[in-house]
Amino acid sequence: MPASVWPAIDGIAYGGDYNPEQWPREVWREDVRLMREAGVNLVSVGIFSWALIETSAGVFDFDWLDEIIGLLHENGIAVDLGTPTASPPAWFFAEHPDTRAVNRDGVVMGFGSRGMASHSAPAYREAAVRIASTLAERYADHPAVVMWHVHNEYGVPVGEDYSEHAQRAWRGWLQEKYGSLDALNAAWGTAFWGQHYGVWEHVGVPAAAPSVVNPAQRLDFARFTDAQLRACFVAERDAIRRFSSLPVTTNFMANQHHGCDLWAWAREVDIVSDDHYLWAADVEGEIGLAIAADLSRSVGGGKPWILMEHSTSAVNWQPRNVAKRPSEMARNSLSHLGRGADGILFFQWRAGRSGAEKFHSAMLPHAGTESRVFREVVDLGAKLNRLAEVRGSRVHADVAILWDFESFWAQDLEWRPSEDVSHDERIRAFYERLWRDNITVDFALPGHDLSGYKLVIAPAQYLLRQADADNLNRYVEAGGTLVVSFFSAVVDENDAVHPGGFAAPLEPSLGIRVEEHLPLRAGATTTIEFGGASHTADVWHEHLVMSDAETRATYVDGPGAGMPAVTRKRHGAGTGWYVSTRPDAAGLAAIMAEVYADAGIAPVDAPAGLEIVRRAGDADDYVIAINHAATDAELALEGVDLFSGRAVRGTLEVSAGDVAVIRAPRTAPGGGH
Amino acid sequence: MPASVWPAIDGIAYGGDYNPEQWPREVWREDVRLMREAGVNLVSVGIFSWALIETSAGVFDFDWLDEIIGLLHENGIAVDLGTPTASPPAWFFAEHPDTRAVNRDGVVMGFGSRGMASHSAPAYREAAVRIASTLAERYADHPAVVMWHVHNEYGVPVGEDYSEHAQRAWRGWLQEKYGSLDALNAAWGTAFWGQHYGVWEHVGVPAAAPSVVNPAQRLDFARFTDAQLRACFVAERDAIRRFSSLPVTTNFMANQHHGCDLWAWAREVDIVSDDHYLWAADVEGEIGLAIAADLSRSVGGGKPWILMEHSTSAVNWQPRNVAKRPSEMARNSLSHLGRGADGILFFQWRAGRSGAEKFHSAMLPHAGTESRVFREVVDLGAKLNRLAEVRGSRVHADVAILWDFESFWAQDLEWRPSEDVSHDERIRAFYERLWRDNITVDFALPGHDLSGYKLVIAPAQYLLRQADADNLNRYVEAGGTLVVSFFSAVVDENDAVHPGGFAAPLEPSLGIRVEEHLPLRAGATTTIEFGGASHTADVWHEHLVMSDAETRATYVDGPGAGMPAVTRKRHGAGTGWYVSTRPDAAGLAAIMAEVYADAGIAPVDAPAGLEIVRRAGDADDYVIAINHAATDAELALEGVDLFSGRAVRGTLEVSAGDVAVIRAPRTAPGGGH
Amino acid sequence: MPASVWPAIDGIAYGGDYNPEQWPREVWREDVRLMREAGVNLVSVGIFSWALIETSAGVFDFDWLDEIIGLLHENGIAVDLGTPTASPPAWFFAEHPDTRAVNRDGVVMGFGSRGMASHSAPAYREAAVRIASTLAERYADHPAVVMWHVHNEYGVPVGEDYSEHAQRAWRGWLQEKYGSLDALNAAWGTAFWGQHYGVWEHVGVPAAAPSVVNPAQRLDFARFTDAQLRACFVAERDAIRRFSSLPVTTNFMANQHHGCDLWAWAREVDIVSDDHYLWAADVEGEIGLAIAADLSRSVGGGKPWILMEHSTSAVNWQPRNVAKRPSEMARNSLSHLGRGADGILFFQWRAGRSGAEKFHSAMLPHAGTESRVFREVVDLGAKLNRLAEVRGSRVHADVAILWDFESFWAQDLEWRPSEDVSHDERIRAFYERLWRDNITVDFALPGHDLSGYKLVIAPAQYLLRQADADNLNRYVEAGGTLVVSFFSAVVDENDAVHPGGFAAPLEPSLGIRVEEHLPLRAGATTTIEFGGASHTADVWHEHLVMSDAETRATYVDGPGAGMPAVTRKRHGAGTGWYVSTRPDAAGLAAIMAEVYADAGIAPVDAPAGLEIVRRAGDADDYVIAINHAATDAELALEGVDLFSGRAVRGTLEVSAGDVAVIRAPRTAPGGGH
Repeated sequence: MPASVWPAIDGIAYGGDYNPEQWPREVWREDVRLMREAGVNLVSVGIFSWALIETSAGVFDFDWLDEIIGLLHENGIAVDLGTPTASPPAWFFAEHPDTRAVNRDGVVMGFGSRGMASHSAPAYREAAVRIASTLAERYADHPAVVMWHVHNEYGVPVGEDYSEHAQRAWRGWLQEKYGSLDALNAAWGTAFWGQHYGVWEHVGVPAAAPSVVNPAQRLDFARFTDAQLRACFVAERDAIRRFSSLPVTTNFMANQHHGCDLWAWAREVDIVSDDHYLWAADVEGEIGLAIAADLSRSVGGGKPWILMEHSTSAVNWQPRNVAKRPSEMARNSLSHLGRGADGILFFQWRAGRSGAEKFHSAMLPHAGTESRVFREVVDLGAKLNRLAEVRGSRVHADVAILWDFESFWAQDLEWRPSEDVSHDERIRAFYERLWRDNITVDFALPGHDLSGYKLVIAPAQYLLRQADADNLNRYVEAGGTLVVSFFSAVVDENDAVHPGGFAAPLEPSLGIRVEEHLPLRAGATTTIEFGGASHTADVWHEHLVMSDAETRATYVDGPGAGMPAVTRKRHGAGTGWYVSTRPDAAGLAAIMAEVYADAGIAPVDAPAGLEIVRRAGDADDYVIAINHAATDAELALEGVDLFSGRAVRGTLEVSAGDVAVIRAPRTAPGGGH
Repeated sequence: MPASVWPAIDGIAYGGDYNPEQWPREVWREDVRLMREAGVNLVSVGIFSWALIETSAGVFDFDWLDEIIGLLHENGIAVDLGTPTASPPAWFFAEHPDTRAVNRDGVVMGFGSRGMASHSAPAYREAAVRIASTLAERYADHPAVVMWHVHNEYGVPVGEDYSEHAQRAWRGWLQEKYGSLDALNAAWGTAFWGQHYGVWEHVGVPAAAPSVVNPAQRLDFARFTDAQLRACFVAERDAIRRFSSLPVTTNFMANQHHGCDLWAWAREVDIVSDDHYLWAADVEGEIGLAIAADLSRSVGGGKPWILMEHSTSAVNWQPRNVAKRPSEMARNSLSHLGRGADGILFFQWRAGRSGAEKFHSAMLPHAGTESRVFREVVDLGAKLNRLAEVRGSRVHADVAILWDFESFWAQDLEWRPSEDVSHDERIRAFYERLWRDNITVDFALPGHDLSGYKLVIAPAQYLLRQADADNLNRYVEAGGTLVVSFFSAVVDENDAVHPGGFAAPLEPSLGIRVEEHLPLRAGATTTIEFGGASHTADVWHEHLVMSDAETRATYVDGPGAGMPAVTRKRHGAGTGWYVSTRPDAAGLAAIMAEVYADAGIAPVDAPAGLEIVRRAGDADDYVIAINHAATDAELALEGVDLFSGRAVRGTLEVSAGDVAVIRAPRTAPGGGH
Repeated sequence: MPASVWPAIDGIAYGGDYNPEQWPREVWREDVRLMREAGVNLVSVGIFSWALIETSAGVFDFDWLDEIIGLLHENGIAVDLGTPTASPPAWFFAEHPDTRAVNRDGVVMGFGSRGMASHSAPAYREAAVRIASTLAERYADHPAVVMWHVHNEYGVPVGEDYSEHAQRAWRGWLQEKYGSLDALNAAWGTAFWGQHYGVWEHVGVPAAAPSVVNPAQRLDFARFTDAQLRACFVAERDAIRRFSSLPVTTNFMANQHHGCDLWAWAREVDIVSDDHYLWAADVEGEIGLAIAADLSRSVGGGKPWILMEHSTSAVNWQPRNVAKRPSEMARNSLSHLGRGADGILFFQWRAGRSGAEKFHSAMLPHAGTESRVFREVVDLGAKLNRLAEVRGSRVHADVAILWDFESFWAQDLEWRPSEDVSHDERIRAFYERLWRDNITVDFALPGHDLSGYKLVIAPAQYLLRQADADNLNRYVEAGGTLVVSFFSAVVDENDAVHPGGFAAPLEPSLGIRVEEHLPLRAGATTTIEFGGASHTADVWHEHLVMSDAETRATYVDGPGAGMPAVTRKRHGAGTGWYVSTRPDAAGLAAIMAEVYADAGIAPVDAPAGLEIVRRAGDADDYVIAINHAATDAELALEGVDLFSGRAVRGTLEVSAGDVAVIRAPRTAPGGGH
């Protein structure tokens, strides 16, 4: 374990990926000068530099790297040093053609892109450990280097691998997991469609087949892929630790890539770091951002984390890469900070002239320093410089939303009741309601200790182990409020349907079982009645069997007509709600208002579009108020405005598009961890 | 040939697929108890059990199968015993990796799904015959076994195979068909695009190529695929017959998979059996059901058939798997029965917890016996029990719609005049009109003896051999009424255009030729004038050359403006109609009303939504009245209600959603076979 | 070089592809009789006949070809003799399986289609040269043969090839281009994503990879593909020239396939010939036709060219193949002629009964001679016969639109700012405005001498070399008017962003740089204000930095709100306009009206739908007036109607759908080359 879990820099970390190898040396001096102007104190170096460091197998060239790290150090800029193992060099693939990843159709992935090798190829593992060790040995004691950045975005752009190496590792992983073929046959239900295995060597990767492949096999393959990628990380991390006690991280992709089980990954890193990019088609991308930030904090157990990459303006890989508008970058950055980030970094420092990402924005854009973006970058650096005292403070939440990668993997397999059902969409819908109410949310696994939360929401818990269901039932019995959305608690860890009707494991809390799923036809809308008002509901109905619940909403029409749509049950000291359909936003708001009452929580009284988050320091709280609206907003608050240094007496005014960070009196945390 | 063509069970067969190998033995006893409760008298066993019966090559384990068949027999439940050759075991593919099917792009199909092998691989053929023989030898005389169920849904999920085995068999098939390369070159028109073959070894399967592959080659490949699959069936059937005289069937997919020429297949089976699933997106799925049922009856020459699979509620493989609503399962089942089915079976008895089809409904759902579905299953069993006397009665039809798989194969090839033209859609449109009029339909080939029909409709006869055209012309001359829809009689058996203008082979009957196809742009609508009224027509116009027909409808606008749209000719004692566009439903209704008059047929006078079918027994008729509407309906009828046992005196009342089966006085069949 | 660049036929060439090998000999005599009836004087023979000429390697059968060429000659019909190398025979691929083209996913392209081999396979090159030489030697002096037609539509249906042969040739091409790996690494920017190459053998074709492949590599691969295809042509051409001095052509696909750089190709052919097919979904397909025709003329430097293929009515390969309406074929043909074509040919003479293109229309349709199409073919032949004096006259244009295949290749690569941006669409939008104004357009490269043009438009010049930008700046300085549309001048020849802000190379002329692209969300519309009126603009905004330009339009809303949308700068004696968004048609019309004023050009005063083009002969002009409208039109004109022979005195009347060709007094060319 490293001596310190936080890199040795002052205040909030600020900077970005820095790729000096793309530029001539004369540019380097301008770079460090402008970094200083912008207040940059941390840059990530070397992330894609394998080919220029190890020029052929075992032959290293450190001159340029020594030089740039030295130059950064002279200018007081710390280095987050990358291991370049996300993109092995051309010579590596030429020497080891068998390490190329293979897709489900058997197509061998070529070079010339961002080229991850097979996670299971021994030659790749060896080469990755070799370069990580060599870098660690050389730079462990360099005063500029404060953190290790292993690899890049594990699982992207290629995670699953169907190569021979993967095939071999997969069988080993299964033998380890199951011990016997009988156990595997039982777990996978191979009696279906005649898939029984009598010999380990016959078990294959779930490649393209005439029809749908065994879903339990595919679910295990997702677990295996995650485990193999994580093993790659651990091998590099451990190689580094032999030489260095600096913290080690790797950049996650929180809610933008679901291939890695970040709960498990977070246990392996010293610091959680995350890359987040707005989804341009979403006109309220700040909500997706908040989800990513809350998830990054949650997987790390609430500790401060680093926003390792985001963008100053547009990205380049979406269908339409919408540019950020003035001050949007600052709002985005400070929302991350408000949700626990103690470092705000970008991809990347200087916009690259060549390659696939030349249209990705940067801190220093193609237009140069005389540009809106660079001016805002400088301004943000100055602002963050005033927030040093916020570092290390924590975020508390009364509400947890369940977020279980394994459940997503299972739900995303083929042949589900309706392709209109999306776990992302349901999580967003419930989260969005809480976001608009400025109720801060943690994410959690269903097996976590949830006792600190007043409210737990399960919008998309398709896969639910019986033991985790028991945990949720105990949570309710002990006084918690639980809201479960439809198509939850359907299968166990092997994607096998729970006996006794869907959702049966949660019957103690909910008082219902689901006799039948009733998906709607494409585009069909229906009506539910809740609390005397009519609301639209679409996509899905269910036929509920009530054992011990009260009907709170009823289907007026559609396949569930006349049957209960939303139910509530008092269980022990707590309450279990079940929402068997997809209500529209107003319907969900009406339901959640009653849920809040059961849970004893209340929205923050603030104008629409004013996002409020709070971090609790040792002595003070810090209130981050972000005005996404086009009109100025007011908030009742006492404290000190950290940007202006002025006191706030009773009313904080936040201009349209602006952000304020206020040192405020400490409040007792309302719950959370 | 088997001693009896009908399995030795009493009354109407009732049951489903039964997969006991997916369950522990304690469940088996519950299964048979509940089967008895539900009135089940026939189950299909062993369909996907190869891996558990032949555990390695030539090593058999019959213990579990003996036990379950014995248990079923003790409980009076007959067995339709499957050969499990639709899903060879893992060990088979491991020993014979060359037997894996290959798709057009050269991707070799993997294991882990529902895994048909190459239909042309000798090792597969041998293994399939071996297990079929072994099963037949062992169970031929078991008193529980009443029928053989070879394989499962031939052609699905994989029919076409581009493997080396297929390549070899394909050349042999071509040599057999053509005798000489000159004949092949002529039939395929290889002078086009320089495709001439000088050596048999150069003739390949029509795999992925730079552009469109020779359509005559692809049409032959569809014939070859059908023939190879059928040869697989025949090999198994003949292996069984060496030991058993029980009837042999294989389950067709009627109008849901067009890869098998069911007219040819029906000649090879002892009993036609069919699988049918509602298409959920179709709000009137019962019409598609009726097509499937009428086709199943027709390919079998009118003999009773077995509905081998349908669903009690939702399936799992469609985009949105809509559940059946209360009483819908009974309506579906009795519509099949009304159209000639003497057995009503489901996939499957008990919902499986694991695998790709866990969300497929079953007779015993996940929710168990206390469920709507199981209650309806028990009720249906009781109802069918009262219909024993219906067994063996026949359906008569005055109308035939042409249904020619070869024509579909040809029409579905690339580079047709408009992708908006669909043979399925045209057949449905004409069929639907007759269905709403309660006029019963047979399907037929254009080369059949059609003299028993008052009306023959060709909605989609793109490929029409000259000899078959002659047959149709003779039919009209002898007094028949023929309706031909556009894009018919375009090509001969080699997908070569008939000389003299499209549709020229039918000019004797129709009095027109088609000078040019005039497809419309996407979404364009136009107007035709028919009988003084205007109707909308879209997708397609044609430029007709009138040799000897009267214009019955005219194009008002669009590319055909001013030209004839619908024509009629008296030919000999009969009449030929040609409909050169796609009229809307009202337009088609208006046209068909005049066609009915020419043919001397009339709709049944019944309320909208009341489906009426009639089976003719030796002494009595049986009228099946199915009320699809949301309101009660009345029908003028005398007879005895077989469910209630009560007499019907002049007026039958059928409640909304309900079905009645009435023993009614025998009517003279209005035609048919 | 050939003795004469024009084939030895009288007047305007008229005819089409002729494939006698698809028909028995009795049809041949009918063919030549009907060709004479139709006025056909030139047919293209042998284009897909390899397999029937060279029946196995080195074994030739010329009997049938001798016979048909002789028959044509006896009937006074000249032959454009094809080399059949677009479709090697089955025996060739059987002997050389390694010559089959391979796609990006590694799928080897099969036989049975229209089967181009790998352009880089030595065996293919040798075989192509052998058959071209053999044909040239045999027929060089045949009096019927007047031109050589090498291959068919290079690049279609397969251009890019990822085979081993291509791999090898690719490395050689790169070594030739770059000389050193340092130069390649710099040009490709391989420092991005760690793609540095240290050894030539590691450089691969840009096959499927885990993510986006290096765009500079892909751009070079497009250049390589074009060069290899062209080398195939040159090899055949040179082989022919050893025996024959007749002109050599190959049929281009102008604006319907962008894989070949026609500016370079046109330098290699003796006569430009082009294939053009209407895009049926386009209700004004005549505009796309005009673009193709103007481009065909422009790449050939203004010399007369041959329309080698178009269709008499529908084609067969589009989603909906709309048939031409009466007289449309003549309008199409004479629009090509008006834009410089001295030959009007069709695919094909007689509709083929078999194969993939049986539903392609022909001069002699399936319906035979008693058909609208054949009557119009005969009529067109008669009309063209009256236009002999037009041959050799030239078209002059005052306006050039930049058309740069390399820029299209670069822009079409992945990860651009918005997938809604299309170079085709922008060129069409600007061209369409000029077409409606009857202002004739040349196409040009940005490096061309543009001094003869009053107006140059750059609707889609994403890639712009600095030297070419300098050329454009000089053009403006010298008095030209330049209009540049958004997303232009973004990258250099290596797809690397120009320093200093997008469009910086054109800042001298335009007075602006582009600080940031501001793509709009899908379907979003915004408003710009221009000249006091509001216009809709969508898809794209930009953030302009004004150095020295006047704002002519302003963004009213959307991401550019308040900023300049359209700018104008006086530069030297000329004017530079920049349009940073996509205005609707009315907005573009308003802008262009002012641009015309700057350039000193004016629309032709003619009714809407009357297309006017003018060819300048030695003594007279020829005005081609094509009435696309449904109403008769009048045009002020003096001259002689060449079809009727009657004088036109002041007013030409052109009936709805009709075309007139008028010999008119010579006007001074308004500019052009």
